[in-house]
Amino acid sequence: MTNWPVYGRINGPVVIIGFGSIGRGFLPLLKRHFALDRPQITIIEPSDENAGLMATFGVKHVKVALTRENYRDVLTPLLTSETGQGFLVNLSVDTSSLDIMKLAREMGSLYIDTVIEPWPGFYYDHKADPASRSNYALREELLAEKRANPGGPTAVSCSGANPGMVSWFVKQALLDIARDLNIEHDEPTSRREWAALMHATGVKGIHIAERDTQRARVAKQLDTFVNTWSVEGFVSEALQPAELGWGTHERWIPAHARTHDTGSGAAIFLLGPGADTRVRSWCPTPGPQLGFLVTHNEAISIADHFTMRENGEVIYRPTCHYAYHPSNDAMLSLHEMFGRAGKRQSKIHILSEDEILAGRDELGVLLYGHAKNAYWYGSRLTIDEARENAPYQNATGMQVTSAVVAGMSWALAHPDRGIVEADEMDYHHCLKVQKPYLGTVEGIYTDWTPLTDRPGFFPEDIDESDPWQFRNVLVHNLG
Amino acid sequence: MTNWPVYGRINGPVVIIGFGSIGRGFLPLLKRHFALDRPQITIIEPSDENAGLMATFGVKHVKVALTRENYRDVLTPLLTSETGQGFLVNLSVDTSSLDIMKLAREMGSLYIDTVIEPWPGFYYDHKADPASRSNYALREELLAEKRANPGGPTAVSCSGANPGMVSWFVKQALLDIARDLNIEHDEPTSRREWAALMHATGVKGIHIAERDTQRARVAKQLDTFVNTWSVEGFVSEALQPAELGWGTHERWIPAHARTHDTGSGAAIFLLGPGADTRVRSWCPTPGPQLGFLVTHNEAISIADHFTMRENGEVIYRPTCHYAYHPSNDAMLSLHEMFGRAGKRQSKIHILSEDEILAGRDELGVLLYGHAKNAYWYGSRLTIDEARENAPYQNATGMQVTSAVVAGMSWALAHPDRGIVEADEMDYHHCLKVQKPYLGTVEGIYTDWTPLTDRPGFFPEDIDESDPWQFRNVLVHNLG
Ligand SMILES: NC(=O)c1ccc[n+]([C@@H]2O[C@H](COP(=O)([O-])OP(=O)(O)OC[C@H]3O[C@@H](n4cnc5c(N)ncnc54)[C@H](O)[C@@H]3O)[C@@H](O)[C@H]2O)c1
Ligand SMILES: NC(=O)c1ccc[n+]([C@@H]2O[C@H](COP(=O)([O-])OP(=O)(O)OC[C@H]3O[C@@H](n4cnc5c(N)ncnc54)[C@H](O)[C@@H]3O)[C@@H](O)[C@H]2O)c1
Repeated sequence: MTNWPVYGRINGPVVIIGFGSIGRGFLPLLKRHFALDRPQITIIEPSDENAGLMATFGVKHVKVALTRENYRDVLTPLLTSETGQGFLVNLSVDTSSLDIMKLAREMGSLYIDTVIEPWPGFYYDHKADPASRSNYALREELLAEKRANPGGPTAVSCSGANPGMVSWFVKQALLDIARDLNIEHDEPTSRREWAALMHATGVKGIHIAERDTQRARVAKQLDTFVNTWSVEGFVSEALQPAELGWGTHERWIPAHARTHDTGSGAAIFLLGPGADTRVRSWCPTPGPQLGFLVTHNEAISIADHFTMRENGEVIYRPTCHYAYHPSNDAMLSLHEMFGRAGKRQSKIHILSEDEILAGRDELGVLLYGHAKNAYWYGSRLTIDEARENAPYQNATGMQVTSAVVAGMSWALAHPDRGIVEADEMDYHHCLKVQKPYLGTVEGIYTDWTPLTDRPGFFPEDIDESDPWQFRNVLVHNLG
Repeated sequence: MTNWPVYGRINGPVVIIGFGSIGRGFLPLLKRHFALDRPQITIIEPSDENAGLMATFGVKHVKVALTRENYRDVLTPLLTSETGQGFLVNLSVDTSSLDIMKLAREMGSLYIDTVIEPWPGFYYDHKADPASRSNYALREELLAEKRANPGGPTAVSCSGANPGMVSWFVKQALLDIARDLNIEHDEPTSRREWAALMHATGVKGIHIAERDTQRARVAKQLDTFVNTWSVEGFVSEALQPAELGWGTHERWIPAHARTHDTGSGAAIFLLGPGADTRVRSWCPTPGPQLGFLVTHNEAISIADHFTMRENGEVIYRPTCHYAYHPSNDAMLSLHEMFGRAGKRQSKIHILSEDEILAGRDELGVLLYGHAKNAYWYGSRLTIDEARENAPYQNATGMQVTSAVVAGMSWALAHPDRGIVEADEMDYHHCLKVQKPYLGTVEGIYTDWTPLTDRPGFFPEDIDESDPWQFRNVLVHNLG
């Protein structure tokens, strides 16, 4: 595309927190897709690593790490504006999304992030019990704030690729399945109607099914954690408990699963790190594969949003979880890290678009258990396509930055919706904005199930009466 | 070295079965280290892949796959000799080591192999129970033949790197530890004395601790199983049950462990594939790492050979098992294969010395649980060192082919010892022969234990009273 559409006008200050792999890729898209009344962008970033790039873009670099103590002082003057509504874009690690979102709303600014991030200490507290280290806990805090302070300036929570875009994919995929099953319906307009439609299609659950085949020119070195996006972000979620939205069709629960006493009740967690918890899943390129059940906000929010209640009783909920096969280098990095009892490697490295020789990030949603078995719908974006469309990012980054653009454009059009999750936004609009950046977006049915070719040479704990039980999905039972 | 030592004279025919990654590397060493009265070597190999190389060496290529039905007819004329004793070197997959060894001995020929291989059908019989698919079962058949037909022409079983060389490393390592602990002893001369010395040092167990860091110039392709040695050999053992020599210090046994009703009783097996069974171990280059508990003959033979009995009762045995971190491409291949419910990829590829950019095969024995905690002793052979010393093989291959040379030279010097395991050979002699090919051979103490940095963020099933319990070594308890 040469004439890129402009999706909105920002008439106050734009402040970006964090200029890592996502920040870098986002900046050119921000300039491309939005009219800025105040062309001076501020970036808060403690590191100098990308200072050259910031200078190229004429950005004001505030070189500081936000903390619990300083964030108000740093952000308040930057967001204060006489001319119009500011936009605060949080693309950092180690800052509290909730605190910063609250401050933005106080200041009358719009806000967006791609993940609910806590202040440091949350992820690596050896004394904390696993429930308190969960994404469920982080999301419940957000929901409490949303309940306590409804409406007001729009703050979009978790509008990245996943969480984010995949919530929009779920809706498109669901409509495709309903069409192919000849289920009569109007397009749902409420949470209730969406849940009812999913229930009607017979969908039992959803994998956020991802395969990243991006591979580097240069092989991974020892004692280095390599990833295609934030190493710090990935390692922290990798070591959180595995979490999943827990569907009403499940008849078995792992012995190391735990439920929460308070909150939505939509999810459970396991007493083990997500990146060491394997699940059987499927993506178009590899076919069947093992992914990791890494905790993610969308596993909980999607399950929650598609919950049907009657007289307060839950009568339907899909199971929902991530099934992530990261890049090969990240696979090896995880194995290396768990070989050191979970202590992160001393060096970290994010593969830039230049360092990647080939491959794609194939990120979609696998809706399973219905009459047509399973349907994968998603983005199959190659590194070449990513390079063609925008600078400074690989395929993984582009799925994220384009979702930020989508979320921002929606927020600008709906500036007073208060705190919203990706599941509450107009998925038509968001996917339309993102589409040019997603490579091939397609839906594919598969007849693979978690019981295909099983059992193997050994007795396995399986439920033959329903291939799509979590009992069959989870790799377990090896002692 | 330019003046390579000649280790013996073979005055009958030399017949090699199989010309894969090990056969290729072995051929030049055979010519280098042995005087052949009949310079015409025969290779039985169904494939034409290395026909050029065979031609270069003036080898007679018998292009046939040995089977249960044809092996006598094919081999008998080749081994028949008026001039002297032949040598049959079995470096193939899918042929029965035992049947071929028996035939060799009938013919008065010497015999050597690097593994006890069965005819096809053994590894992939979905109807067979796991015990019958074990290396324990294969070894017991060998031991029965040894008991039934003692003495006669020497047939060396399992004289590769592991099984093979590592049995010799165990003895050297044990002497080093005894020396460093100031344990008074004469060099043991019998199985009984060796076991007594190990007992006296307080060694609780042994990992065959390997890290292969050899990496390819070109990245692994999808749907391809890549390895640094036989893919067929590795996949078959990868899917056999995990097996381990079971030590007398163990106070816990996994729920999915099983014992054997007959035989030496030295080993147990687990109801799961070895290459999907992770163990915490240690090698010099990475430090702590996760390896796979792939079944291997030496895990059983070493445990058996170092068993002490009093009045028929077992009073001491070390635990012994493989802890294999294969090359990164093999790691990814295993993960891919288990993602397809254990169905092997459609393509296979062995990395040749040309395709490997860098790395080494670090293969040793970790003797643990004694007063100095743990001692790794082994070969740290780089691909560059391998390339310098002999053609047509990578570092992994060279550790194997040089062990074949060592075993053959011993057999030529002791041609009437009947069936022998590597544990029964003169380790001084064998290591001396191998040494020039092994790169750095060294012993290193470590204070790492399987409890280092544990537990992590989650409750773990550990025995704090003894770090070196298998309970602490095995990765388990994630549901
Ligand atoms: N939803 C999604 O699909 C998705 C995908 C990728 C990344 N993310 C999230 O986006 C965020 C950015 O990812 P990334 O790949 O760019 O990460 P990154 O690790 O490359 O960059 C993070 C940046 O934050 C900066 N930072 C650290 N502490 C800070 C502080 N106290 N104040 C301000 N900045 C600070 C770092 O210096 C770094 O430049 C992460 O939170 C990540 O989890 C979400
Ligand atoms: N002990 C050790 O340390 C060690 C290490 C590596 C390999 N090995 C063993 O050595 C053997 C050879 O390994 P490799 O890496 O060369 O394997 P490979 O797969 O490269 O080669 C095996 C060869 O055997 C041939 N073959 C297959 N069926 C045959 C038959 N019926 N008759 C004759 N030949 C047949 C194949 O065509 C192939 O060329 C394997 O059994 C392997 O397990 C042992």
